[in-house]
Amino acid sequence: MKIDVCLSPHEVSEEKLKDHIAVVVDVLRASTTICAALAAGAKEIIPAESIEEAIRWATNLSRDAILLCGEREGKLIEGFNLANSPLEYKPKIVKGKTLIFGSTNGSPTVVKTRLAQKTYLAGFVNMTAIVQTLAEVETPIVIICSGKLGQFSLEDAVCAGNIVSALKQSLESILDLTDGANAALLLYQHYQESILKMVKESDHGRYLASIGMQHDLPICADLNRIPVVPVFHDGKIRIQKDKPGR
Amino acid sequence: MKIDVCLSPHEVSEEKLKDHIAVVVDVLRASTTICAALAAGAKEIIPAESIEEAIRWATNLSRDAILLCGEREGKLIEGFNLANSPLEYKPKIVKGKTLIFGSTNGSPTVVKTRLAQKTYLAGFVNMTAIVQTLAEVETPIVIICSGKLGQFSLEDAVCAGNIVSALKQSLESILDLTDGANAALLLYQHYQESILKMVKESDHGRYLASIGMQHDLPICADLNRIPVVPVFHDGKIRIQKDKPGR
Repeated sequence: MKIDVCLSPHEVSEEKLKDHIAVVVDVLRASTTICAALAAGAKEIIPAESIEEAIRWATNLSRDAILLCGEREGKLIEGFNLANSPLEYKPKIVKGKTLIFGSTNGSPTVVKTRLAQKTYLAGFVNMTAIVQTLAEVETPIVIICSGKLGQFSLEDAVCAGNIVSALKQSLESILDLTDGANAALLLYQHYQESILKMVKESDHGRYLASIGMQHDLPICADLNRIPVVPVFHDGKIRIQKDKPGR
Repeated sequence: MKIDVCLSPHEVSEEKLKDHIAVVVDVLRASTTICAALAAGAKEIIPAESIEEAIRWATNLSRDAILLCGEREGKLIEGFNLANSPLEYKPKIVKGKTLIFGSTNGSPTVVKTRLAQKTYLAGFVNMTAIVQTLAEVETPIVIICSGKLGQFSLEDAVCAGNIVSALKQSLESILDLTDGANAALLLYQHYQESILKMVKESDHGRYLASIGMQHDLPICADLNRIPVVPVFHDGKIRIQKDKPGR
């Protein structure tokens, strides 16, 4: 079984996606927030590549049924309903709604994976659920770290490495790991006992703390807190209910 | 002292280069081959972004004084004098010559750093010479891994981590490391006792062996084999003789 890890979204190419299962990682915070939103009963999430695209989507849909969500520089966008803190996505706010989601890094990365057979979203919060799902697929896997504005993010690489490590333990076949997958695995092995500390000390973790979002960090680092499997298909992210395709 | 590591050349931006000293790493093989060429007496090396640019350069210069060098898919380009194996760059061939150098990854990455205050080229072969040079600069440093066709390459990240590790030991000031620099440092710490094995098992190392270039790998992994300091300035790479700018 071949596993590739793209340490930044720039590394993604058509060739890497075609006939692959993609896994998008954005620990701080899109993966975490999308898990929270779906677990809180959101009907579906439409990831947008840009603020403009998010607004276009919203204009085409009935305003009662949707919420405009997203952030720039970690903060709420003017005219939007929700920003990108998992704490905002409560059942009384999101239940039954379609969310248009325009985050800086995670959303465009998810949209970029359109050519993959299927795309899952992963963070520490849904690690075991994602790994159990991936352990059943027989298609090569490419894990894509969303990073920050095209830059490498340590927390995403460590999370990708956590997936590689868990698959290595659960699969009987020998894994064929690329350089990126080997690097992510080693980074995870180094940080596995101190995930929250690593998240707090990462570049983006320190930035989020500097804008008053430090309360999100323990949530984003909390292993298996929200055991859902978000899957992106036909432009929408929903909870996967059926078995993954083989 | 701030040290950043770009794990792939896509991460480089104008902001990252401006007022920075850049260090370009391409262990397999441009950094190594350029060190070999300069140590063998080449007058200067003009890195080209593409084959077409290399040919344009060559057309504008006296053909007697130059050599057209480079590779695609690791092999000699038709009509070129030399490919990208350090073993080809012998004094009797390159002494006193201007080399137009068009490799797939290293050359365009070097050209990309035009906006930096100065650019050095580093591999394992000139590690201590590079670190001694960098230890004297007081400008923030950005180390750029050339990778392979925009993809992460383990051997470049480990080499970048070697530079970070050595600077950490030699500088008295506390280093301010980005996520990329921390990741590279950890990868180096893991592989430091087995550099040649890591190079041989890397994606690009295995590719080079598959096309019959396995004899280059021990050279590229040979610490301090060629202790020169190649510096890129005004479009040309030469051996640095003066003290670095502060």
